[in-house]
Amino acid sequence: MIYVIGIGPGKRELMTLEAINALEDSEVIVGYKTYIDLVKDFIQDKEIVQNGMRKEVDRCKDAIEKAKEGKKVAVISSGDSGIYGMAGLILELLSKEDLKIKVKVVPGVTASIGAAAILGAPIMHDFCHISLSDLLTPWEVIEKRLEMAAAGDFVICLYNPRSKGRQDHLEKAFEIMKKHKGENTPVGIVKNVGREGENKTILTFENMDFEMVDMTTIVIIGNKSTYIHEDQMITPRGYVV
Amino acid sequence: MIYVIGIGPGKRELMTLEAINALEDSEVIVGYKTYIDLVKDFIQDKEIVQNGMRKEVDRCKDAIEKAKEGKKVAVISSGDSGIYGMAGLILELLSKEDLKIKVKVVPGVTASIGAAAILGAPIMHDFCHISLSDLLTPWEVIEKRLEMAAAGDFVICLYNPRSKGRQDHLEKAFEIMKKHKGENTPVGIVKNVGREGENKTILTFENMDFEMVDMTTIVIIGNKSTYIHEDQMITPRGYVV
Repeated sequence: MIYVIGIGPGKRELMTLEAINALEDSEVIVGYKTYIDLVKDFIQDKEIVQNGMRKEVDRCKDAIEKAKEGKKVAVISSGDSGIYGMAGLILELLSKEDLKIKVKVVPGVTASIGAAAILGAPIMHDFCHISLSDLLTPWEVIEKRLEMAAAGDFVICLYNPRSKGRQDHLEKAFEIMKKHKGENTPVGIVKNVGREGENKTILTFENMDFEMVDMTTIVIIGNKSTYIHEDQMITPRGYVV
Repeated sequence: MIYVIGIGPGKRELMTLEAINALEDSEVIVGYKTYIDLVKDFIQDKEIVQNGMRKEVDRCKDAIEKAKEGKKVAVISSGDSGIYGMAGLILELLSKEDLKIKVKVVPGVTASIGAAAILGAPIMHDFCHISLSDLLTPWEVIEKRLEMAAAGDFVICLYNPRSKGRQDHLEKAFEIMKKHKGENTPVGIVKNVGREGENKTILTFENMDFEMVDMTTIVIIGNKSTYIHEDQMITPRGYVV
């Protein structure tokens, strides 16, 4: 039995009851070290299998081995288990080997939803999620998606917006979106959603500060109707108010 | 004080601790009747303000009036509070009247994330949310977004896909996406996510059954890599497995 659990952005309060129950029911907890630390209150006395970034495949294979031994295993992802998380990888590995291990996917609050609540209500209308990491996706595909998302006037949530190894992706992304996103389009920047050091900044497309953004950041770009009111970013749904 | 609370798709287990705490801290609960029923265990002895569909503006104005009286008010949305929910409307109304009432937006698990967990892992990669309701959005805007989302090979989550008054929207949407979505693209259909009568069906783009879909349904259309394995819909993230 494998639970693939989305633990939410970070703080305990943003976990679902189902995630907590699944953690408590598990005998082995498998995850990236940072995420293991976030749930440490729930997993005292359990067997922990943790490793570093970019070891996702190894980690999921370890989880499957533990499950084969008959143990109840929890594989944890931050945010949701299925949005850039581990659910797909676990199911892919099992489908490839045609292994019959029961899997329960436990959903969670993804980082953009957590960030949006901090910013006000930026994602009230049709939106896209795009990860700017080209570790697993060709950059050309990402460019095309940015172009289409901006042309469709979606609210755009950027995951993995900028890292030491990918300093210029975010700036390139803004260059691509510029054709369609007006210079006054609000841009919400939230660091460390639900974690220590959480903070938000609201800028505009034209005055974007790329240096503020790192891998712990979610960037949300408004649509044509999004506006800033005091310290909030608001996208109208279309009601007459 | 107004809490705008995302209560998750339906069942208690998919609520966050923060949502439960906020409900318990509130004196007045404002919401659409169906959603009030979903949280009735948490709101015994509280003042309830409920009304029907399409009364969103009235409902939010009522909530603001109660808050002006000094009461702690919870406005509830199903799923997340900010994705097609009430957070934006509350903040819009307050910003328009420049009222200084404290608002806390409490995020929740939106229906697509709940549906995805039931289907397997269909939203593992870049995705879009599009509502097919043209009550608040011109149909031309929706068409454009469908076209762009399909051209960008996003996983596409359709909200409000089909109702009695909008029988043909979903079929029209598929017609628009057909240029870019291959006939074998998996399509996940989940009814009543997290509620009584929950059920899922996985079809392909070519063999879509529009009659199965109603307003209680979420439809998730895969990207070029999405595949079906047994009763699961899986979108690879791009790991080499």
